[in-house]
Amino acid sequence: MKILVIGATGTIGALVAEALDARHDVIRASRSRSALRVDLADPESIKSLYAKVGRVDAVVSVAGQAAFRPLFALSDADFALSINNKMMGQVNLVRLGANFVNDKGSFTLSAGILSRQPMPGGAAISMVNSGLEGFARGAALELPRNLRINTISPGWVTETLVALKMNPNIGTPAAKVAQVYVKAVEGSMTGQVLDAVGDAS
Amino acid sequence: MKILVIGATGTIGALVAEALDARHDVIRASRSRSALRVDLADPESIKSLYAKVGRVDAVVSVAGQAAFRPLFALSDADFALSINNKMMGQVNLVRLGANFVNDKGSFTLSAGILSRQPMPGGAAISMVNSGLEGFARGAALELPRNLRINTISPGWVTETLVALKMNPNIGTPAAKVAQVYVKAVEGSMTGQVLDAVGDAS
Repeated sequence: MKILVIGATGTIGALVAEALDARHDVIRASRSRSALRVDLADPESIKSLYAKVGRVDAVVSVAGQAAFRPLFALSDADFALSINNKMMGQVNLVRLGANFVNDKGSFTLSAGILSRQPMPGGAAISMVNSGLEGFARGAALELPRNLRINTISPGWVTETLVALKMNPNIGTPAAKVAQVYVKAVEGSMTGQVLDAVGDAS
Repeated sequence: MKILVIGATGTIGALVAEALDARHDVIRASRSRSALRVDLADPESIKSLYAKVGRVDAVVSVAGQAAFRPLFALSDADFALSINNKMMGQVNLVRLGANFVNDKGSFTLSAGILSRQPMPGGAAISMVNSGLEGFARGAALELPRNLRINTISPGWVTETLVALKMNPNIGTPAAKVAQVYVKAVEGSMTGQVLDAVGDAS
């Protein structure tokens, strides 16, 4: 398959691209560190990316910015960033990209564990993560030509917990999380939220 | 309790206000048909409403507009309406209203069944409904002074199904749905999503 991976230089994204590379033709894009650049918050940038890449069999997004901040410190700008970048950015990958994806292809989007396991500081992220999961459940019913769409909401990644000096024992290694993305791309499910606990082979 | 009900003239909202009236001091607000008016999409309108109403013990929102339209017919404006009105409008009721709610008071917001039971045409609504549920799960951890927040995601309302000439047998009468709002206001749960099936007494 020809697979466009957006956010291909991140902690998880780099491993997703690497894991897919073994069996597929992977095209890497990211905000600033790939030859192909895309700003998720800008629909014109997304259109430009698809125009350059052309037809693909799968679009995998491991990207999206959102604001982590105490509830009453979250500004209007923090909510706008979270909505326009992580949520609508990925929704627009679907809206603007469906015509570029071959029959039976797929979209795999990234939400995150705060959708179901909230924590202080995470209200805006819980909102957009849950919103993404809801959108994908709905969109799965309407995508044409047997296109599929799923959301990955992995738990905490071990490498991230180490970087944040949090307890790494509750984490899942990024390489294992990456395999969940591979499963979503190569599998047949649609409209699902996949976590990364007991979900990767 | 002194309770502000927003959307007090709708199919469900009118019955919520009526049910709460039996035991509480209810203040009714709505977009156009109440003496107190509020435009959820406009933070200044929300601030003005709270300034007029003053301190309350509970805020109940049975309001919020969102766009129902086939996935690829949903315009940027449809997504913006759904986000700014139903989702951020209700989020802003919390952000701008917390200081007006007395200790141990509560917010009760309205999402809807499309968060968990999607249907064609409902992708934007599934997104904002799920987003509201996620926001409330997160905000519940951070509200001060033992304030509570819950989301009601009732199933289809019988009266609505009849109006839309859909099968009313899958519906719940609006009066029963209204009792779920009463339960959220008078109960002690927080961070929960309440449906209206087997949930109202």
